[in-house]
Amino acid sequence: MDDSQGVTRVHEHGYVRLVEAWGSDEQIVAAARMSTDGAFRGWGTDTEPGDERLLARLWRDRHTSPFEQAGMSLEVRAPLFVVREWQRHRTQSFNEQSARYGALPYDDYLPSIERVLLGGQSKGNRQGSGTAVPHAAAEAWRTELAGLQERAEAVYRLGIESGISRELSRCALTVSRYSRMRASANLRNWLAFLALRLAPDAQEEIRDYARAVATLLAERFPRTWALAKEGMTT
Amino acid sequence: MDDSQGVTRVHEHGYVRLVEAWGSDEQIVAAARMSTDGAFRGWGTDTEPGDERLLARLWRDRHTSPFEQAGMSLEVRAPLFVVREWQRHRTQSFNEQSARYGALPYDDYLPSIERVLLGGQSKGNRQGSGTAVPHAAAEAWRTELAGLQERAEAVYRLGIESGISRELSRCALTVSRYSRMRASANLRNWLAFLALRLAPDAQEEIRDYARAVATLLAERFPRTWALAKEGMTT
Amino acid sequence: MDDSQGVTRVHEHGYVRLVEAWGSDEQIVAAARMSTDGAFRGWGTDTEPGDERLLARLWRDRHTSPFEQAGMSLEVRAPLFVVREWQRHRTQSFNEQSARYGALPYDDYLPSIERVLLGGQSKGNRQGSGTAVPHAAAEAWRTELAGLQERAEAVYRLGIESGISRELSRCALTVSRYSRMRASANLRNWLAFLALRLAPDAQEEIRDYARAVATLLAERFPRTWALAKEGMTT
Amino acid sequence: MDDSQGVTRVHEHGYVRLVEAWGSDEQIVAAARMSTDGAFRGWGTDTEPGDERLLARLWRDRHTSPFEQAGMSLEVRAPLFVVREWQRHRTQSFNEQSARYGALPYDDYLPSIERVLLGGQSKGNRQGSGTAVPHAAAEAWRTELAGLQERAEAVYRLGIESGISRELSRCALTVSRYSRMRASANLRNWLAFLALRLAPDAQEEIRDYARAVATLLAERFPRTWALAKEGMTT
Repeated sequence: MDDSQGVTRVHEHGYVRLVEAWGSDEQIVAAARMSTDGAFRGWGTDTEPGDERLLARLWRDRHTSPFEQAGMSLEVRAPLFVVREWQRHRTQSFNEQSARYGALPYDDYLPSIERVLLGGQSKGNRQGSGTAVPHAAAEAWRTELAGLQERAEAVYRLGIESGISRELSRCALTVSRYSRMRASANLRNWLAFLALRLAPDAQEEIRDYARAVATLLAERFPRTWALAKEGMTT
Repeated sequence: MDDSQGVTRVHEHGYVRLVEAWGSDEQIVAAARMSTDGAFRGWGTDTEPGDERLLARLWRDRHTSPFEQAGMSLEVRAPLFVVREWQRHRTQSFNEQSARYGALPYDDYLPSIERVLLGGQSKGNRQGSGTAVPHAAAEAWRTELAGLQERAEAVYRLGIESGISRELSRCALTVSRYSRMRASANLRNWLAFLALRLAPDAQEEIRDYARAVATLLAERFPRTWALAKEGMTT
Repeated sequence: MDDSQGVTRVHEHGYVRLVEAWGSDEQIVAAARMSTDGAFRGWGTDTEPGDERLLARLWRDRHTSPFEQAGMSLEVRAPLFVVREWQRHRTQSFNEQSARYGALPYDDYLPSIERVLLGGQSKGNRQGSGTAVPHAAAEAWRTELAGLQERAEAVYRLGIESGISRELSRCALTVSRYSRMRASANLRNWLAFLALRLAPDAQEEIRDYARAVATLLAERFPRTWALAKEGMTT
Repeated sequence: MDDSQGVTRVHEHGYVRLVEAWGSDEQIVAAARMSTDGAFRGWGTDTEPGDERLLARLWRDRHTSPFEQAGMSLEVRAPLFVVREWQRHRTQSFNEQSARYGALPYDDYLPSIERVLLGGQSKGNRQGSGTAVPHAAAEAWRTELAGLQERAEAVYRLGIESGISRELSRCALTVSRYSRMRASANLRNWLAFLALRLAPDAQEEIRDYARAVATLLAERFPRTWALAKEGMTT
């Protein structure tokens, strides 16, 4: 729970931080063995296979309940449009910064020029991006967006300084404004989150967060991650 | 399912529309009677009490499972900041308009001058509003907000017309932009939604939507609503 | 909601009855079209494909949220060991007969001789059955079980008649005793239920109930069922 | 995770064992402070109040989401009728011993004579017990139940030894047979579990398990428990 550990930066102002993890690869095996009256026995050796085979079979057969016996609690700072997608995962538990209770700090997500240059509307995937944008157009739009974010902040501040409530003043914020939350879920859910949010048709911004989540998960649950990552785009 | 029925307008561009309801006050009683091997018998008369007494006892004792045997599916058009609060209700099912798939129509929520005049930051309730704002300040801020929304639309359109993907161009949208969704839940959940979102400390905008939901619920489930509304601010 | 309709008998004393269904194949398409700002347009003709293609794509890509906008509420009578498996589906809503509130009627599940003859312990699937049992052994065991059920009822009744509470007297009931419940879920969940409970490795008794559920689902949602049943064992 | 620690015996053959807990009273406060951009500051002193006031306010106002950021995973051995009630808590995660995969060990719950003597059917509460049962009747029924359990085991074993599958042979088991499971939930859910299962109208047997859960919770989350236990019957 040391704040200096387990923090992964995402873009200029965002991050994912491990608050706490519980359970382990071994506990998942032990939970699965509940059905057969057994417990975790050990991982295999060069000559003798071990409980990694059970873990693999559980995963392959989508026998996912043992993966509910472990989990992670994370702290996340991300733009509102990313938070919106994240919170569609309804079996996670969230505690988010309230823009009604306090003014949101002035940090907005401004896509890098590299991101905009490759952020053209995809032809094949109507939801996605990935085609090239001419340099001048990319620069021009990015400058416009930066100007808009500045003006949005000005209108937001004007509201608050005029005595208008924070809840109403926030109408001026764009969805690129950063928010912060704790997100807690069991491993079954985190793996479902990653399957969707690491996929090539996910938006690049949330994929970057998903990669950070995957890194934290892999450190704590290396054998589970070794299984789960197959078939995922990482 | 006639589109002309069950539509309640909310503010200038929003609405709540009943797509479908299932179950009934009588089915809730019948579900509760499952435990005692009985069924719905009838509502009382002037001289003889009936199943409204069972319904009241269930509600009072928070025996809420029978209220899961009925529900409503709604279509909602609301600003993003309202949708965000709405989707924190994790036992609802949502299908929402995708800003990645198609450009969001140019409709933003501009609070009425009456709303802004009474939308000053509350002193007692750090989250709320309700104190008076001087007329000049209210007018000035509202004009600024309208200008910002116009500029946001311009930057959004510029992005799309420059070939930048919709998913990236939407960084320019403010949280006052309208989205549209279907929200489906059982009655137990709708009543929990209303208890929170009709409350005086809820933001005025979502309270207006909650009132529209309450009206639809009251029409289809009048006896349940008669019980539930006590203790709620409506 | 006519009791004479939609009742499917299962074994000697069990049944599945449709209480109510909501939504439709068309509403599922309409919910999916929410993302693209469209609505249900129509099913295809011989020469022109229609919305069945969208439905198929949703299903194939596991884009399951539109299937949450429809559902069924069922009444079920089944032995306790079947109810136990059923209630592991945690996103269903249940109202079950209470053995604390009233004595359970004297109906037990006695497997047919045909079931016992083919109910030998499976070798390949440690959970299952399916090998042959010698006729004499099958008859002998079935007779023993019938005698045990009779004695269990006698001990149960003795408790209740001696003034011992129903909640304590039920210690004498076997898991073959019948219970009754309402089970309500959206279509996404019913399809997940069927995928697990129609599968060859599910216990024969719950498969029989799952078949009854599938029949009701197919009547009301024929196009959805046509898609979903592929890959399921029915 | 030492097996010798955190085990609480319940009745003759049952227990509750702490597998793991995560989060803490301090983490709950920190999650709540997320909304106000703060963190856990400290508990109060004699002269200066501290974060216990925030915790109390959260609890009183049913602002329960911070309590989802902590939890416990338990191993439980209990009779089937207790497991049935337990598993109605649908936001818990379960891994249970499978009677299809292996034969259940021969342990049944036989209520103590003291329990039966006070286990008469309640008059006021149709679900409960608590009135006196004559000594002779109590003894007689308990002897009958013990005999039935013995015979049930004999029929169960006869089935298995005759080659009849475990899944079918279990028809002979009574609901007093012991099962074993892991149950994992966040603190919000455990507190809801305790509110229902410690209550005077809960069955005595599950109350005994709830008391064991409460003890484990109190050790790890003493300040949360101090708040929550008010209004609960412990």
